[in-house]
Amino acid sequence: MNGCLALDIGGTKTSAALFTTEGRIVDDYVKTIPTPANEGEEAVYQSIKKLLTHIFEHFGIRREALLGIGVGSPGPLDRTNGIIIHAPLMGWRDFPIAKRLNADFGLPVSIDNDANLGALAEQRCGAVQGLRNVLYLTVSTGCGCGIMIDGKIYHGKNDGAGEVGHLSIDPEGPECPCGGRGCFELYASGTALTAAMRTDMASGKSSLAFEAAGYRPEALSGALLHEAAEKGDAYALELYRREGYYLGIGIANLFNIFDAEALVLGGGVTKAKRFFCDTLIETAQKRCIQKLERNQIRYSELNDRVVLHGAFFLIKEQ
Amino acid sequence: MNGCLALDIGGTKTSAALFTTEGRIVDDYVKTIPTPANEGEEAVYQSIKKLLTHIFEHFGIRREALLGIGVGSPGPLDRTNGIIIHAPLMGWRDFPIAKRLNADFGLPVSIDNDANLGALAEQRCGAVQGLRNVLYLTVSTGCGCGIMIDGKIYHGKNDGAGEVGHLSIDPEGPECPCGGRGCFELYASGTALTAAMRTDMASGKSSLAFEAAGYRPEALSGALLHEAAEKGDAYALELYRREGYYLGIGIANLFNIFDAEALVLGGGVTKAKRFFCDTLIETAQKRCIQKLERNQIRYSELNDRVVLHGAFFLIKEQ
Repeated sequence: MNGCLALDIGGTKTSAALFTTEGRIVDDYVKTIPTPANEGEEAVYQSIKKLLTHIFEHFGIRREALLGIGVGSPGPLDRTNGIIIHAPLMGWRDFPIAKRLNADFGLPVSIDNDANLGALAEQRCGAVQGLRNVLYLTVSTGCGCGIMIDGKIYHGKNDGAGEVGHLSIDPEGPECPCGGRGCFELYASGTALTAAMRTDMASGKSSLAFEAAGYRPEALSGALLHEAAEKGDAYALELYRREGYYLGIGIANLFNIFDAEALVLGGGVTKAKRFFCDTLIETAQKRCIQKLERNQIRYSELNDRVVLHGAFFLIKEQ
Repeated sequence: MNGCLALDIGGTKTSAALFTTEGRIVDDYVKTIPTPANEGEEAVYQSIKKLLTHIFEHFGIRREALLGIGVGSPGPLDRTNGIIIHAPLMGWRDFPIAKRLNADFGLPVSIDNDANLGALAEQRCGAVQGLRNVLYLTVSTGCGCGIMIDGKIYHGKNDGAGEVGHLSIDPEGPECPCGGRGCFELYASGTALTAAMRTDMASGKSSLAFEAAGYRPEALSGALLHEAAEKGDAYALELYRREGYYLGIGIANLFNIFDAEALVLGGGVTKAKRFFCDTLIETAQKRCIQKLERNQIRYSELNDRVVLHGAFFLIKEQ
């Protein structure tokens, strides 16, 4: 069939799917498992191996029928050698994912950063299809950006381009684990939202989200915040307004640098986009030096499957 | 001879030179005149026309011997139609510089942003010769950035890429004429240095630079600050240290986004680089997520002539 396997490794969950040579997900079947991040690097790898074996068995395909395995992973990584250099959430350091998968499945393996694959997928078949200079900003646990210049992923010197999560938007702001201060993702990521909820609950603010979590800090989550906003909770709506403000700042910065045709927003936090998209566009337009049209900011069309689709194109276009 | 004329239009001065086909400035002769910025757009154009006529007469060349006229100008501009859209310092709005020069000299005219031409020149024959993904950050009246991706200038959608002067590094910072807040050039440009000197002089701080200006705010300048620093003036040294800090923040942001092979610093402020280069590299290294080598930050090798050299390559490579 000359299709390929696509794998999206994340800190909390890992997904896999089989693609036809035309880029369709076979039977619309995506298998997702929790990533056993706390059990050590070998356990994570074994769970991935089992997941891919399941896909092979589910479809009864032989490896000869496939072009390869495309892998999306958090960075930093070494594409040339197929090594995930550091993935703190999975406990990985210099993990030779390509070599391991190749040894176990006998197929060529290519890897790239998940934000880069998001950009590739949205440009090839998603929200910015056909445009040449576009950005994909993913906002979930952290923030990352895939950059497409002239229709190709821009990787930078050490595959390190697009680390917009560590764009400092306040040089004197809070310290970031990266060594910097006031990094964008301390304000705009999903982690930042949960951290703000914890602080605000501790300081006595009230919200349906805090109630729903039984006032246990560890039970607070983006999902509970989203539910509260759906019910019109004032606290949740204000927190999302702030989210839109910070996303607008970061996005204006990106347009001031790239003057991109369009930017696509993806990642878990964007599920609640209706609560922040107006503040976001208003802030971005005010702070962008060029005229920014509303339709230059778009939302992912491929959602949870965006990295899988990118992994398909990674193999397909080799 | 198939050489070309190069023109560097600036808010305070304008320069022109004749280039051989190999990219050498003929007789090492660069003619520079003050830009009569306050006399209106036609006066500025006439001074440019006179300058180019002088070059023709000085060398006794005929237009048939030349490939064209390359023009570097502050942005925003419309390269396709050779129009300078807005240059507040020169009082220009939608000025059709290419059409005017073509009508007067009968030669093809190409224009580009001065920071872009700086990047082009440094990559073709300057501090980052042969590298593919590089940045040129010019720090003078304002701050601008030329971006070379895969050995080509990256222009963005409307020739508006590289507006790093308006990268917000403090969302709640002072208002910028651009409509944003806390823009990078409010902290790091030559204009920012002079503004800080005015504020500090008014608040009673002491410096050799204030003495040299006769305590007249309008006489304060980067040149006086530089002289004071050369004499070991504590105030001047501290202001340059702060300059290095903010440049380091902005440069770390650029490396976090581009993971560039190298960045070249140019523009008038860098003449005082020995007073801020250590703070700059220290700050940038601390705030950069990838390892940043000292030699990834370089200083212009073409200095005042960098835009002229870029204008040469603009014509040469058409």
